[in-house]
Order: sequence, then C-alpha cells, then structure tokens
Amino acid sequence: MKHFEFVNDRLIVLDQRKLPFQKEYVVCKTYQDTYTAIKDMIIRGAPLIGIVAAYGVVLGFKEIIEKNLEKDKIHDVIVHLSKSRPTAVNLFWALDRMKSTFERIKDMDKIEIYKQLLNEAKKIESEDKNINRKIAEYGNQLIKENSNILTHCNAGALATGGYGTALGVIREAHFSGKNVHVYVDETRPYLQGARLTAFELSEDGIPNTVICDNMAGYLMKLGKVDCVIVGADRIALNGDTANKIGTYSLSVLAKHHGIPFYIAAPTSTIDFSISSGDEIPIEERDEDEVRIFNGQKIVPDTSNVFNPAFDVTPAENITAIITEKGIVYPPFKQNILKLKD
Amino acid sequence: MKHFEFVNDRLIVLDQRKLPFQKEYVVCKTYQDTYTAIKDMIIRGAPLIGIVAAYGVVLGFKEIIEKNLEKDKIHDVIVHLSKSRPTAVNLFWALDRMKSTFERIKDMDKIEIYKQLLNEAKKIESEDKNINRKIAEYGNQLIKENSNILTHCNAGALATGGYGTALGVIREAHFSGKNVHVYVDETRPYLQGARLTAFELSEDGIPNTVICDNMAGYLMKLGKVDCVIVGADRIALNGDTANKIGTYSLSVLAKHHGIPFYIAAPTSTIDFSISSGDEIPIEERDEDEVRIFNGQKIVPDTSNVFNPAFDVTPAENITAIITEKGIVYPPFKQNILKLKD
Repeated sequence: MKHFEFVNDRLIVLDQRKLPFQKEYVVCKTYQDTYTAIKDMIIRGAPLIGIVAAYGVVLGFKEIIEKNLEKDKIHDVIVHLSKSRPTAVNLFWALDRMKSTFERIKDMDKIEIYKQLLNEAKKIESEDKNINRKIAEYGNQLIKENSNILTHCNAGALATGGYGTALGVIREAHFSGKNVHVYVDETRPYLQGARLTAFELSEDGIPNTVICDNMAGYLMKLGKVDCVIVGADRIALNGDTANKIGTYSLSVLAKHHGIPFYIAAPTSTIDFSISSGDEIPIEERDEDEVRIFNGQKIVPDTSNVFNPAFDVTPAENITAIITEKGIVYPPFKQNILKLKD
Repeated sequence: MKHFEFVNDRLIVLDQRKLPFQKEYVVCKTYQDTYTAIKDMIIRGAPLIGIVAAYGVVLGFKEIIEKNLEKDKIHDVIVHLSKSRPTAVNLFWALDRMKSTFERIKDMDKIEIYKQLLNEAKKIESEDKNINRKIAEYGNQLIKENSNILTHCNAGALATGGYGTALGVIREAHFSGKNVHVYVDETRPYLQGARLTAFELSEDGIPNTVICDNMAGYLMKLGKVDCVIVGADRIALNGDTANKIGTYSLSVLAKHHGIPFYIAAPTSTIDFSISSGDEIPIEERDEDEVRIFNGQKIVPDTSNVFNPAFDVTPAENITAIITEKGIVYPPFKQNILKLKD
C-alpha cells in the first residue's frame, strides 16, 4: 500500500513518525481523526496536509449523513480542520476548494454531495501527483550533471500525493541519468531527513549521505554542494518562503558560498493574500519534541526549550522557485503574480 | 566528586557520555585506559583532553616502574597517547610539557621521576583552572547587561580543569549580576550542548534555553542573539579556529546578522606552528555516532553518513579571541604572535 489511501469510507495513512523502521498504518474514520493525523504529524508535508484535510471534509460529511445533521454543519468541520496546523497554506487552500465545491452543490441530496466531495478530494490528490511531475521536469532543467545536491527535511513522495516536490526534481535528475548525489540534513527535531528523505532516496537507488544539520556549512565550504533544493510550506507574494526550521540558515550559508538555492513547490503553496513573509504565522510545537528523543530525555528539566517548526527565508536568498507552471525568477513580486489564475 | 580526580595512582573520570541523567565514573588504571577515555569521548573538551593525557603519562610511568621497563619507554606511551584524537592541540601541548619534564629529570631514580611527572600533571590541571578564571574576567568585559548569549557544544567546567572557557565567561557575567540568558545549541551528534552545557548552566542557576542547531539562524534573524561565544580546539597563527562541527556555520550566520562572535580559549590552544586553519587536521568519527541515537537507529542502512567532528572558522568571522593573557583583536596574525612566551 502507498502512504495513504481512501477506501471504504476511511482514510488509511502510514504513520510517518515511525518510518522507516516500523510500517504502521493509522485508520481515520472521522474528520477528528484526520485533524489528529495532521496535528500530531502522523502525516506531514504541506501538499499532503492539504490532501488529508480534503478527505477530512469528506469524512465530516459522512458523519453529517450518519447522524442526520444539517448539511451546513460541514462549515464547522472545515473550521476545525483549519486549526490543525497554522503555517502550511496548502491546508487552507484545500479546505477552500472543498468549501467552494460544497457551496456549489449544497442543494443536492446528501448522498450526491458526499460523492462529489469525495470526487473533489480525489481530484486534489491526483492533481498533486501530476503537479509534482511537472515541477520535477521544470526543476530538472536546473540540475547539472554530477551534481551534489543538498536538501533539508522531506519534500518527497511522503510529503505529497506522490513523487515529491524537491525530491521530485532530484528523482527526475537521477532517472534522466545525471549522476546526482544528495546530502540529506537529518532535520532535527523530527528527523524527516534522516528517516524519510534518506529512505525515499535509497528506495529509488539515489546515492545519498545523511549529515547533521550543523554540518551543511562545512560541506559548502569544502565545495561539496552544487545546489540546495527544498520544499515550501507557504510562499508570500514577494517570494519570502516559509519552510522547515533550518531552511533560513541554509539559505544564508548558500548565499555566502555562492551556491544556488531553489524552492520547489506547487502554486497552491503560494499565499496570494500576503505581501511578505512577515505575515506568515510560525508554529511553535511542543518542547518535548526537542527534549525527548526516542523516548529518552536529552535536555535536563531545569532548562527551557524553544521549538519553532518553521522559519522564513527572505526572497533575496532564493535563486528560483520551481512550480508546475514553470520556474519563477526574481523579481519575484511581479513574476509570482503572473502565476495567479 | 568533581568530573575527574587523580587518587591512589588512578585517574577517575566522570563518563560524560552519560551525563546528565546518569552519573557513572570510569577508573583509568593504565595509560591505555586514558587513551580510551579520550578516544571514546568518555571525557572531551580540548583543555581536559590535555589534562587527562598528562595523567596518562603518569600512569604510563607507573607501568614502567611496575614492570621494571626502561625509563625511555615513556616516549612510546606519549606517542600512543598523541594518537587518541587529532584535532585539539592541547593534547600535544600537554604531552610536550610532560616530555620536556621527563627529559629534564630522566637521570633521577624512577620513584622521583614518577613524583615529578605527577606534580607536572597536577600543575597543568591547576594552571588550567586559574587560566579559565582569567579568561572569564577578560571575557566578561565584552558582555553587556541583559545579554542573550548563544553557545555551541560544551566549553564549560566539564571541558576543562574547571570553570570553563566560553562558559567561564558566561558564569562570570552571571555572577557579576549582568542578567544574562543563554541559548544552547543542542550540538548534534553528541549533544554536548543539550546534555552538558544546559546541565552546567542550570546547576549554576543561569537561565538557559536549548535549541536544535538548525534554529540558531532564525533566532539571530529575530534579533534574539546579542553575541556568540564558543570554545576552541586549535587556533592557527592567523586566527583561524577549529571547534566543534557547526561552529563555522554559526560564524557565517553571526557575521550576516552583525552579531559579535567570540572565541574563548587558553593560549595552549594556539598552534604557533601553523599559519592557517588549512593545516588543522579534521577528525572524522564513526558514522554510528550520527546513525544511532540512544541505541536506536535513525538512518537507514542504505544511506551513507558523514561525521566530521570539527570545522574551521576563518579569522575574518571572529570578532575577538579571549585568552588568559587578554583579549586578542584583529589583525590576528600580528596580535597572536605577541602571546608567544
């Protein structure tokens, strides 16, 4: 089975907290279950969060049918799901699509509404896969032969409907025979790099080396990094990009060493309503994610912990943004606006 | 008991790999035991490595007496100990001192030689404590009231004979009433920050917050870091400084944000024989230190791991070097030479 699947009115998701050493699935029977799956990071990755939230709306409407509630109760479901995580905009984008769909069809009978909501969620899912293929093709134009590529966190198949954004580009480069090698930041505290990205790359036979996050600068200084590619959780109109904590530091280091720094993301990650990254809310997560490692405490109780989940990379540190509609270069302000339908 | 003690012809050391949650001591009965204590990082920190190596020479001479070997066999002991770790120059500095002492007294009878070697090791130890006090006093001049100080790894009492270098400066600032707060990089892969520095600071009632290494840049961008202070493992004549992996990245980030970046180290950390950091050997340690965390695998077997233990921060990223002989500012090339006796 793949990393998520909607079958028999249930969303089954692979528990990404336990990968790659344990393969356990979590069954979401209700929209609250999908809320928990997002909030507790059973699933993560901006595009996948959007997809799972869309299926959450479907499960919410199932409950409306079963409990014979008002159709309009779906709005409460959508509001609830929107509170699962604050930073990745794909969540709100997907919920908006589901809401518009509902508004369009709300006079139909409940069973028909359910069917159409399910269709819309499936469409969001399948579109995402196609989008990733396009991102990969565009992005591959930027990758030179024999490149050492640095990536952070996991912007792979596991973070999306499939194939991945940043890892989609890397996959495309690999399968087109470019002989790439990937340096993977382990990505504390959640280790999405060490656990998920390294796993995905190895599964596809792409040579990769895991490093601790604090080693990236040294590698750049040694001349061992040809480019950096990461995903995104939200992109502002001016190109400022929120992504996993640590991305900002990488962008400063890349700039210092004259190394191209690429963002790969679907246009659903662009928040056309905000003019700069200052407006992006940065989620702070439970300090135990840093304090406790694999069930063992690593920070004394007498110390505080700070655990922001994201940071914002300013547009001036970004060489280009790779989307399914093409590669966007500076000046981002005017070129991002062109992507709006 | 403190973190190491030479009693009854044995060196007892606190196992720093298990701090702060377990307090276990390792008894070094032979010089090979001290070699292992250094190599396996039971003890660590450039100044402490030097002290332990000095006691290792003492234990080596004890064996020469017990096994009735040639006095000159002590040279083999010194060579062996010098191979324990390659980067911190304090190791070679301390071994050179023990060697010179031996050369001066080698015509005496063995019991007398043993006594004098032991005295020399004790002198290296007590001198280091005094040196740290002086570094702290000088360094404190650089710390402003209400400062947020960022540090990396552990350059504290545990890394030295006592009081600490970078943490000595912070202690002095705290005890002189400056109301400082410390951000502590957890310092992967060995977590000296989360485990040792956070522990030491809390023991002294110094407010501190642990962050993952990849969060430092974001904190700087938020304006939450007033200065960075770290220790050193080797300083070249031009000021280039080897220190725990990740220090280089921090220095680039500090420079980018206009934040002062200080090195605190005894002059025994200066390698007057090398003109730049290019000549400093960088130790690569076993990849399992990254791959396995608290006994649990976090990187799939199919991925490679790169695990350099140190990096070199170029002089141009360093605001000042704090030594027991005063604060050294650029131009480092000429000002470091003035420190030579």
